[in-house]
Amino acid sequence: MSGGGRIAVVGLGPGDPRYLTPEAAETLASAQALYGYGPYLDRVPVHAGQSRHPSDNREEGARAAAALRDAATGTKVAVVSGGDPGVFAMAAAICEQIEEGPEAWRALDVVFVPGITAMLAVAAKIGAPLGHDFCALSLSDNLKPWELVERRLDAAASAGFVIALYNPISRARPWQFGKAVERLRRHLPETTPVVFGRAVGRSDEHVKVTTLAEADATPADMATLVIVGTRETRVITRPGLSPLVYTPRAAAEASV
Amino acid sequence: MSGGGRIAVVGLGPGDPRYLTPEAAETLASAQALYGYGPYLDRVPVHAGQSRHPSDNREEGARAAAALRDAATGTKVAVVSGGDPGVFAMAAAICEQIEEGPEAWRALDVVFVPGITAMLAVAAKIGAPLGHDFCALSLSDNLKPWELVERRLDAAASAGFVIALYNPISRARPWQFGKAVERLRRHLPETTPVVFGRAVGRSDEHVKVTTLAEADATPADMATLVIVGTRETRVITRPGLSPLVYTPRAAAEASV
Repeated sequence: MSGGGRIAVVGLGPGDPRYLTPEAAETLASAQALYGYGPYLDRVPVHAGQSRHPSDNREEGARAAAALRDAATGTKVAVVSGGDPGVFAMAAAICEQIEEGPEAWRALDVVFVPGITAMLAVAAKIGAPLGHDFCALSLSDNLKPWELVERRLDAAASAGFVIALYNPISRARPWQFGKAVERLRRHLPETTPVVFGRAVGRSDEHVKVTTLAEADATPADMATLVIVGTRETRVITRPGLSPLVYTPRAAAEASV
Repeated sequence: MSGGGRIAVVGLGPGDPRYLTPEAAETLASAQALYGYGPYLDRVPVHAGQSRHPSDNREEGARAAAALRDAATGTKVAVVSGGDPGVFAMAAAICEQIEEGPEAWRALDVVFVPGITAMLAVAAKIGAPLGHDFCALSLSDNLKPWELVERRLDAAASAGFVIALYNPISRARPWQFGKAVERLRRHLPETTPVVFGRAVGRSDEHVKVTTLAEADATPADMATLVIVGTRETRVITRPGLSPLVYTPRAAAEASV
């Protein structure tokens, strides 16, 4: 029995409320308790009678367990994620805790509310860089060995996937992005288009188009999403307007 | 000079209006002319004074050109896509036409409005199957050789990416999905969890969890999105409730 408790894992999208789906807005409004990384919680409109439980960025497991304990007492809980909760965010952390936790947590009503993840928002700002087959890869080696990151970069680039890089760099991981760019140069020409998108939908939004040759000299941080094109990705220059970057729908035979 | 014309390429999400972002709803409401595949256009609320231009599923290039011609006369045009316009949808077709078309099209105000793409909606219905690195791959060989599809399946599965398969099957492409499953069995155990999601957010929604051993015997069509897990993807059984499928955030060392 769930005792009426519910846990919803809600995607806020990239930041601007114009990206928040009606389903997410309703789920947040009907929650009795909100859990999440502080800056994400700050984006959620205040409703009377809701409790708020901000936590630190690195505490996904503990946050998920606290939210599940609260839901198991009958509370309607919402756990917020930036972007989509299933993409390098809270949904997997919640599932991990349900699998490891008390049997009662398996009886809870659990819902996941999708959101616009960063790669879709950044792609939309610049054209259609994900226009064909693509992958999403986190450069964080907190939870996987760096050798596995490199193996995945090799596999994706050599097979012609567009690559969206999440978590490219942080204070604790200063060298990984440069190493990744070096690695990608083994497979892709220096002219390959690379898109940097930061804080899309927020007041400090910044989107920049560069090349693989220049990518490691381009500033990035934890709020940056990087899209690395393929041999076929194209840049359309437009007089007086920002360029469009896209990957054609048709693959050239030469990529086989 | 654009003469006031604008072309917006708008993602409708998976079908239910609860997935439509406020940005998409506003963009559709302010359009003077709507273009798109008929069944997608039928989802858009009618506003007085808007013209509607439905077209067939296979006519992306011609539809994009017609919409651009209209925008170049000063019309505010919206082209609708299911899901996200940048994921196997209209955004790349629009960019292709802009690159190939008359110079005036490069001066148009072009915006892309992201939406919830099918893999995010299906993942959210079942847990967090995309919980770690993943890729999105179209099984259609209309625009690329089948050998390239197989090479990408090999690369993704052997490097441990979760794989979201778009366009798994159609009347004109009856054998590709079975071949893809056979190919994936070279790299992944028969017990690997596979999720089939169809028509998520619509009245005939259906989500099913199976294994790689059973995947090719499971019904699918063009409206189905298939997610193939990794060696690490887990299924949590829940008494009286549907199972949860997730891929843990931490990769096992053994995957290297």
